[in-house]
Amino acid sequence: MQKNVLIVYAHPEPTSLTSQFVAVAQQTLQAQGCDVMLSDLYGMGWKTVFDACDFPDRIEPDRLSLITESGHAYSTGQQTDDVVAEQQKLLAADAVIFLFPLWWFGMPAILKGWIDRVYAYGFAYGYKNEGNRYRYGDGILKGKRAMLSVMVGGPAADYTAYGINGQLEALLFPITHGNLFYTGMDVLPTHAVYGTGRITAAGIAAAKEVWRARLTQLFDEVPIPFRRQNGGDYPDGHTLAESITSGRTGLMVHRRDTLGELAI
Amino acid sequence: MQKNVLIVYAHPEPTSLTSQFVAVAQQTLQAQGCDVMLSDLYGMGWKTVFDACDFPDRIEPDRLSLITESGHAYSTGQQTDDVVAEQQKLLAADAVIFLFPLWWFGMPAILKGWIDRVYAYGFAYGYKNEGNRYRYGDGILKGKRAMLSVMVGGPAADYTAYGINGQLEALLFPITHGNLFYTGMDVLPTHAVYGTGRITAAGIAAAKEVWRARLTQLFDEVPIPFRRQNGGDYPDGHTLAESITSGRTGLMVHRRDTLGELAI
Repeated sequence: MQKNVLIVYAHPEPTSLTSQFVAVAQQTLQAQGCDVMLSDLYGMGWKTVFDACDFPDRIEPDRLSLITESGHAYSTGQQTDDVVAEQQKLLAADAVIFLFPLWWFGMPAILKGWIDRVYAYGFAYGYKNEGNRYRYGDGILKGKRAMLSVMVGGPAADYTAYGINGQLEALLFPITHGNLFYTGMDVLPTHAVYGTGRITAAGIAAAKEVWRARLTQLFDEVPIPFRRQNGGDYPDGHTLAESITSGRTGLMVHRRDTLGELAI
Repeated sequence: MQKNVLIVYAHPEPTSLTSQFVAVAQQTLQAQGCDVMLSDLYGMGWKTVFDACDFPDRIEPDRLSLITESGHAYSTGQQTDDVVAEQQKLLAADAVIFLFPLWWFGMPAILKGWIDRVYAYGFAYGYKNEGNRYRYGDGILKGKRAMLSVMVGGPAADYTAYGINGQLEALLFPITHGNLFYTGMDVLPTHAVYGTGRITAAGIAAAKEVWRARLTQLFDEVPIPFRRQNGGDYPDGHTLAESITSGRTGLMVHRRDTLGELAI
């Protein structure tokens, strides 16, 4: 069956490595028979800042509550067209790939602004108007796959388990777990290209080969085994049962393969 | 001696709890004799997106390399006025407080865009044009203090060591460690107000009292004991000596109080 893939990407330079990776993904996925949708945030001039302009017809004109207005606009069909278009792409997608340079250990602001605005109340959170009932493994995007593909200027050593920046997958946990898994998506391990600040032509060619190979597994790879909110590990829906953690803490306790990970 | 404090804040609603906390900070710090500088990102209409417009006089007109242009603009005095103004505030400050609502486990896009643009090459990274020599405890902002003060919609339980969102200080590590400590600043533990989505008037009053009390200790508190790059724990400047970690991994190994933390 034909799969739909959404690529959301953020880089202002059309010849950047990020942009080249987008082109590789388009070609590779189309060759596999996928339909590829693109959200080129710089190219689209994506409105980055979440503010009162997002809600021209306010339910509370005197004081801006973003949650209230987001929920109102979503439920009454009064969201701005650009936000609706991105939500429709997400709903149509079987997999979503976010391609961006790692800037200061996170997303470029324009991509964070995509999350801030597209992740409406009633859609990405407060699904079915049931508070936190559907999140972390359940939600409107359940059953879809998501992957971050990041271009990292610094060397890989700095992002290892003992690397001075912190381990990449832990630095990205607020995104992979908090933004993607939150909405129900299955999140694949992050794809990273390191040392892009000094990469050679041969290095780029090699990195593209690895990326092509990775993409062929997009619908077959095993996702990060994040624990589902409603799977029994969080009896009250808020905190992990202490019996599970064996006294360990840290972000990785929220993965089912935690103990192995931390025992390294 | 009079101290200078810079408050950088991000909320579009002037009556928001974030804005109220800014007012409390101004009053409290001024009453202590501090000079307070404000960067109201929404009020200033801060340019959020880092792009070619930041570099009208390019050293490489054909292809935009943000690092190259940032370094060139910084070293030749050709940065945009808004970026220069923020850098000057940082240099004048003895302490910097970032006040914002936690959106999707990170900063609002407008604040991330402040980091992306103000953190120029030669200033926040590549200091003295010496690559990574000065970072994580050394850098242009060494000796200054920094603190995040965040308004969190969800309940505190969700952000505890076993909380389903992940522990707050770990979620914010990319900012506290990767953005603030990176430039040499001493980072204080994050100040958080939880449950702001349903907070009562009495809750707000109580939260403000706690905030006032916290501010009186701004220059006395013990910072988060992040390990300094050049303090001996990272022999090659990239990876933590394995003898230090006792086989443990996770972001908290980059704190000197790690073992105690993880043994909880």
